[in-house]
Amino acid sequence: MSKKTIRLLMPQWQGGDNPNYSFGAELLAWLAPDHDQPLIKVPVQAYDGTPLVNENGMHGRTQLLEQLEAAEHIIQAHKPDRIVMFGGDCLVEQAPFAYLNERYGGELGLIWIDAHSDLVRYVGYDNGHTLPLGNLLGEGDPEFARHVKVPLKPENVFMAGLTAPTEQETEVIHRLGIKTVGTEELSNSTEVIKEWIRKSGIKHLAIHLDLDVLDPTKFRSLLFANPDKPYDLSPAGTMPIPQLLHLIKELSEETEVVGLGITEHMPWDAINLKHLLGEIPILNT
Amino acid sequence: MSKKTIRLLMPQWQGGDNPNYSFGAELLAWLAPDHDQPLIKVPVQAYDGTPLVNENGMHGRTQLLEQLEAAEHIIQAHKPDRIVMFGGDCLVEQAPFAYLNERYGGELGLIWIDAHSDLVRYVGYDNGHTLPLGNLLGEGDPEFARHVKVPLKPENVFMAGLTAPTEQETEVIHRLGIKTVGTEELSNSTEVIKEWIRKSGIKHLAIHLDLDVLDPTKFRSLLFANPDKPYDLSPAGTMPIPQLLHLIKELSEETEVVGLGITEHMPWDAINLKHLLGEIPILNT
Repeated sequence: MSKKTIRLLMPQWQGGDNPNYSFGAELLAWLAPDHDQPLIKVPVQAYDGTPLVNENGMHGRTQLLEQLEAAEHIIQAHKPDRIVMFGGDCLVEQAPFAYLNERYGGELGLIWIDAHSDLVRYVGYDNGHTLPLGNLLGEGDPEFARHVKVPLKPENVFMAGLTAPTEQETEVIHRLGIKTVGTEELSNSTEVIKEWIRKSGIKHLAIHLDLDVLDPTKFRSLLFANPDKPYDLSPAGTMPIPQLLHLIKELSEETEVVGLGITEHMPWDAINLKHLLGEIPILNT
Repeated sequence: MSKKTIRLLMPQWQGGDNPNYSFGAELLAWLAPDHDQPLIKVPVQAYDGTPLVNENGMHGRTQLLEQLEAAEHIIQAHKPDRIVMFGGDCLVEQAPFAYLNERYGGELGLIWIDAHSDLVRYVGYDNGHTLPLGNLLGEGDPEFARHVKVPLKPENVFMAGLTAPTEQETEVIHRLGIKTVGTEELSNSTEVIKEWIRKSGIKHLAIHLDLDVLDPTKFRSLLFANPDKPYDLSPAGTMPIPQLLHLIKELSEETEVVGLGITEHMPWDAINLKHLLGEIPILNT
């Protein structure tokens, strides 16, 4: 029987406290190839001009928890074999990956393609999108981690493209024994990841793709590449798109990919152009 | 009676000999605000991998003429009062602006917001998109100019944002007496254009907007801002988006805008991301 795959569109912005993530999600879903996979929208409270409240160290905590539950309900309504998630800030991946780990007996493999670990809070930056991997491992934020019925095994997680981790991130990575490989090493060979898949017997793999793993001087639709602010390139990614595609293809050949999340798309030009078009009189009268 | 406005989507790429213009047109139309203006697609021969033939100094001349005629037929089928054209290379504007000049008794005003004059051929660059304004003035390429039943009056044309014209362009501009104003001067005041509108008695105005008038370090969805090639910034535009919007709003208050063409959109990030998504196995199986 063929696998049942659903696509979720979750234009969540509260996890990064930036409404532009919502439009990034919509454009991402529009760019995806046509397919008979159903596209289901997860309800998200749209930005209405009201600033998010910092609730116990997280902006928009209540909304984020409500939206997490909405995603969980939609997934339970469909009970798919495979899930593609279009975000939105990267906290959108918690619901699908937690479901897939349960669905595959707690043995889900997860490759975290990202310039950031998403394991811990950063002091002075109270946004939920720094925590999805922490939550999935049963750490992170207790109110979110509680939603993960079967936490992923740290030995089933591999981080690719991590750039300049903080001391605190490095501590967690070492304590949990999470494997990592940098973009430069991967540019020579993906063997280290394929060997991990074989040795660990990973039969089902989820791929987290935070677009900020890409080099923002080549792919400019990222938070770090805001044309109206000087580039803040640290700690930005360095991966070229062809290398990313090669990696995803290699993973897909090595094992069965059952989950894919694509997040943190911030298409500045399209945002600015849409705003321009929205203000031109002949297009609106 | 309210004005009848149509939107045309013409994903023509042959005029710039670059298939990316087609996708740029599609994305542009998708970004436009929802409205009850009908969106009509002008048939264009999609790129199928066959290189264009250089026919008498123009790549794809036959296709470009066929597509010009298709646009003319669609406009004649609707006989609108106002036309919005989403390109595509900027040759797409010939049909709507020639029609509007006839529709308004040969007295159409035209503001040419562009880093380039689009008046003449450049030696060694045999692409039709260097000629639309020339054609509309009865100069340009004879096979195209012949389609313009009532050529525009040069005194009814104003160029805004022209950057580094060649000697040949300068000659034509002086010979025809076309007014020009640079981006820097416009940043202080749009009065020179508004005065022209008042003094010339322009009752109906068309706006040509070639996106390459914009500063490509701020708006990167332009031919000149290819992330895989070193920037070739000459002669690129320098206008910021807020200034462009201000100009369009001022024009729209000063007189009746009956035509708008937006062209030369080349959204590199979206093109590269769409290609990536099109190759990811889980999205295609």
